[in-house]
Amino acid sequence: MKTTPRPLYAQEFDALFASICNWGRWGPDDERGTLNYITPECIRRAAGLVRSGRSLSLSLPVNTVAGPDNPHPAIHYMVQTHDTPSDLGEPRFALDFLGMEFHGDCHTHTDALCHASYKGQIYNGRPASSVTSQGPTVTDITAYADGIVGRGVLLDVARQRGVKWIEPGEAVTAEELEAAEKAEGVRLGEGDILLFRTGHHRRRMELGAWNNGYGGEGKAGLHVTAMTLLHERRVAAFLPDGDGETIPSMVEGVAYPIHVLQVCAMGMACSDSLQLEDLARVCEEERRWEFMVVAAPLRLPRGTGSPFNPIAIF
Amino acid sequence: MKTTPRPLYAQEFDALFASICNWGRWGPDDERGTLNYITPECIRRAAGLVRSGRSLSLSLPVNTVAGPDNPHPAIHYMVQTHDTPSDLGEPRFALDFLGMEFHGDCHTHTDALCHASYKGQIYNGRPASSVTSQGPTVTDITAYADGIVGRGVLLDVARQRGVKWIEPGEAVTAEELEAAEKAEGVRLGEGDILLFRTGHHRRRMELGAWNNGYGGEGKAGLHVTAMTLLHERRVAAFLPDGDGETIPSMVEGVAYPIHVLQVCAMGMACSDSLQLEDLARVCEEERRWEFMVVAAPLRLPRGTGSPFNPIAIF
Amino acid sequence: MKTTPRPLYAQEFDALFASICNWGRWGPDDERGTLNYITPECIRRAAGLVRSGRSLSLSLPVNTVAGPDNPHPAIHYMVQTHDTPSDLGEPRFALDFLGMEFHGDCHTHTDALCHASYKGQIYNGRPASSVTSQGPTVTDITAYADGIVGRGVLLDVARQRGVKWIEPGEAVTAEELEAAEKAEGVRLGEGDILLFRTGHHRRRMELGAWNNGYGGEGKAGLHVTAMTLLHERRVAAFLPDGDGETIPSMVEGVAYPIHVLQVCAMGMACSDSLQLEDLARVCEEERRWEFMVVAAPLRLPRGTGSPFNPIAIF
Amino acid sequence: MKTTPRPLYAQEFDALFASICNWGRWGPDDERGTLNYITPECIRRAAGLVRSGRSLSLSLPVNTVAGPDNPHPAIHYMVQTHDTPSDLGEPRFALDFLGMEFHGDCHTHTDALCHASYKGQIYNGRPASSVTSQGPTVTDITAYADGIVGRGVLLDVARQRGVKWIEPGEAVTAEELEAAEKAEGVRLGEGDILLFRTGHHRRRMELGAWNNGYGGEGKAGLHVTAMTLLHERRVAAFLPDGDGETIPSMVEGVAYPIHVLQVCAMGMACSDSLQLEDLARVCEEERRWEFMVVAAPLRLPRGTGSPFNPIAIF
Repeated sequence: MKTTPRPLYAQEFDALFASICNWGRWGPDDERGTLNYITPECIRRAAGLVRSGRSLSLSLPVNTVAGPDNPHPAIHYMVQTHDTPSDLGEPRFALDFLGMEFHGDCHTHTDALCHASYKGQIYNGRPASSVTSQGPTVTDITAYADGIVGRGVLLDVARQRGVKWIEPGEAVTAEELEAAEKAEGVRLGEGDILLFRTGHHRRRMELGAWNNGYGGEGKAGLHVTAMTLLHERRVAAFLPDGDGETIPSMVEGVAYPIHVLQVCAMGMACSDSLQLEDLARVCEEERRWEFMVVAAPLRLPRGTGSPFNPIAIF
Repeated sequence: MKTTPRPLYAQEFDALFASICNWGRWGPDDERGTLNYITPECIRRAAGLVRSGRSLSLSLPVNTVAGPDNPHPAIHYMVQTHDTPSDLGEPRFALDFLGMEFHGDCHTHTDALCHASYKGQIYNGRPASSVTSQGPTVTDITAYADGIVGRGVLLDVARQRGVKWIEPGEAVTAEELEAAEKAEGVRLGEGDILLFRTGHHRRRMELGAWNNGYGGEGKAGLHVTAMTLLHERRVAAFLPDGDGETIPSMVEGVAYPIHVLQVCAMGMACSDSLQLEDLARVCEEERRWEFMVVAAPLRLPRGTGSPFNPIAIF
Repeated sequence: MKTTPRPLYAQEFDALFASICNWGRWGPDDERGTLNYITPECIRRAAGLVRSGRSLSLSLPVNTVAGPDNPHPAIHYMVQTHDTPSDLGEPRFALDFLGMEFHGDCHTHTDALCHASYKGQIYNGRPASSVTSQGPTVTDITAYADGIVGRGVLLDVARQRGVKWIEPGEAVTAEELEAAEKAEGVRLGEGDILLFRTGHHRRRMELGAWNNGYGGEGKAGLHVTAMTLLHERRVAAFLPDGDGETIPSMVEGVAYPIHVLQVCAMGMACSDSLQLEDLARVCEEERRWEFMVVAAPLRLPRGTGSPFNPIAIF
Repeated sequence: MKTTPRPLYAQEFDALFASICNWGRWGPDDERGTLNYITPECIRRAAGLVRSGRSLSLSLPVNTVAGPDNPHPAIHYMVQTHDTPSDLGEPRFALDFLGMEFHGDCHTHTDALCHASYKGQIYNGRPASSVTSQGPTVTDITAYADGIVGRGVLLDVARQRGVKWIEPGEAVTAEELEAAEKAEGVRLGEGDILLFRTGHHRRRMELGAWNNGYGGEGKAGLHVTAMTLLHERRVAAFLPDGDGETIPSMVEGVAYPIHVLQVCAMGMACSDSLQLEDLARVCEEERRWEFMVVAAPLRLPRGTGSPFNPIAIF
């Protein structure tokens, strides 16, 4: 399982891109991409999975401490505390300010479809230049304003391998995803929200933060060829505990190939840096790896993404 | 119905505070307050309300424009666009920064229980001084990390009155809430999430923003005595389209009395500035005023609240 | 004096632009524009004006309150106060955070030469597109890192007119500048720093803030034709109490024509929103309208300007 | 010279504190501390030092990159570029946002006298509790609004030692300051602004950033006993290239003892992290180590300090 397949050449990658490209699939004006797979029936069935009546967060705490994987720590300041006299008398209020450059490896967030461009284009063939210094005019994060709601499936590949975590640089193949499905008794299907666990944050908790980007020690993720499986299964959203990427990249001349395939080619809802350790434990307790998911980005006009706190409900 | 009851004297208010005070009810260490009313059974039943399979946002768009009701506009800047060359070659990424002093009338947000203090104390009798310039050490917003999940009930008082909106300064009584229940065929019960619509944002859309705070033109809200009904019914959370307050205050010497009762005395989850116009329309279409709600604040340690995007699911 | 000259047609404006254009004057790589007029001899002579040994600020206080002329209030939060225990024991420190979108009418700031573009070009004929989402690569504010140091001359036109302030919409001509010179016994010359007082902030203090931009009530400023005088006199920097502009514009189809001429055509150091009320009083006391000026923008790589606190020394 | 004197016990430190304490010296309401030493005559004489007519920055560039000595990188984003269409037609403007938690080792800044407290008190015996979450009410940075203007003297101790830089952990004594005076032919006197160079930033440029704080590799600075010399000489301001501290501290139980003595006891203007490499070179070229200094913090009400760009003029 751990034998890493050979890297792809640029040409092969472009062929792969073409083979799973959804441009035009939902019309030229589409801004929702694979969320179109989520039908009302999907949402109804997802709600039907709520049996234990427990909910849990899939988010990391907001992280204000700079580190090798947190070059843009969140800024969080008190604006007012209860020692501040009020002109109006009682009561008093404590207030704070939160600022985030939220597309970072330590910030649980979702990307908008305008986030990633490849060769000058974003999802659905729009020009990348449509995203100016004023932000995107289409496929901003408000396309997801009503939430990403559906059946969540956790494919816990670290569990499947019997390890605490998958080591940086290792790539997970489609075969391994299918093996995890079998072991967990689930099957990814149309409109599903895929939670993908490599154990990234368990490693971080136990060994400390590392530079997991390019030029650093790298990251465990999906092998690019596995995106074909996600395409065939019509998965709606992909929420990994890293950012889905295997780093270093396994594609010649292309960094972040998973983002290219997922966001640009497929228009698939893409999130980074979920905290799946609690979820893994609860799935084990519940003996099931499917549940309802509700993930709601902030309603940020012209946003290229948003911090968020996805909720799993069992 | 529109006859506004007389204001309360300070003494009467303190008696009201005492009569609905939940301090100690869930133990001295409790940080979740009335969310304790939400049992697994409540969540199961809430999920059972998902029949149409449609979801919608209860949030306003993030507002970056200063105005009479937005003294602290959100700041939102592009960090990078697709014109930024990458050292790594393809692909390119668009990034942005969001900063919010989120406790404001134009920002849909939830408060933590540490947010409001009355006479030197916060919920559960803790000293207000426990909230320092470093933020709260208890009852911060992470107490709600796993989301506010349950049955939502919209009491649409503007609809009940047959008006587009309730005018600033007018207070809604318990009787009026009960009349809305009857008209809608619902009954608020233990663990419910109450959505309370005055039509605030419809007024704003039609007439423009106004200074709705103290010293300005005021706001429509709940009459303080109505909090007794919410207490008796064991409501878990109160999510209004304003901030719940009638302004000017109807209590002598106490500004924001609803916050005092709700957050300090009752420990009830409190949100401000929801956008309930879409919800009102959908309830009308669905002919039902109950649905599943999932509201997930960011997981912000030491946060006194969080911007969020609550989702209603029918 | 108060008769406002007729507006300019676009063609006339472009001719004016061409007649005072300094592109290439200091070579194709120049980034300092008219600061090149300030020779060591200018600085020596400026220092020679220091006779009373008093210094004063020409800056407004940083303004955190949104208002009709402050759509982007500064954000200023305490990060830590003396109540914060330190791991190291004594002492303790109070810390704060300051954030500014500093190009605003309420923020005393200087512009970099890249700030303004006209018809796709910035100073010295560089393409406006050289300023990307990552900021400018040339003529950023670090071109002024060593400070704007030289002889300051206050032309107090409100005093000259015998009014408390010049009313919004009124334009000051070259003739009026020359009349002020005579009245004050000074003559603007090569390398001088021109302080230009309309009484803007006195009006603001007495009558309250107003919307002084386009579409609002406007602003008193310079007549565009007066820029020819500044060009001929080889003025190095222009620091007005408004932003120099007469609003509404007196040029057909061109908003902010003073910025276009000053920043784009002449490459003249340009500041906005100085506080010249204290200076006017001190000049009166000292019976002289010339003094040393030291104005030091923050050393902000890729900055399009900087907040600053210019100092006059008598 | 390099023999480091023995550490001080807490009691000795408190005696040192008492011996150089200026509380009450300029009255109970004083907010300017040792800036009171700067008389008009001092400013006149400082201006008399301007002979070459050259000015230079003593500031580091604003640093937006997190690192071992930059846990709170500045945030700097474009707000608008020239690609942003204007409703008003021509011209267009490039704008940016700058946010700084400016009290950091990588940010050239000045402290206000309220910044440091010792045993519950700040300068002039005021209670530290007067600095609330709303900031200080006295001795904020606006006490320096009119600039720190006077004679600057560079004591270049690295030069004196004949080294590129003084190594972290080494302390500079009064004797060594006096030796530097002799070597440079200057004598620190009443109202002077002391620039103190250890070569901190040269080390950083050559060897890279290091964790120079407590628990890290430390910092070269002044020995606490040297503060007596600064007190006797009536120095007005102390502007080092580190933060003046020797780290680890040479006082038992007191971290940052230089700040305690300088800011709390003496009320001496205190700046951190100046860039003195250019200055050292220019002093060498000019063969003099005295010059005019103008340092102007932003006029920030309730600020505990300010980023700034001090200017030396020769």
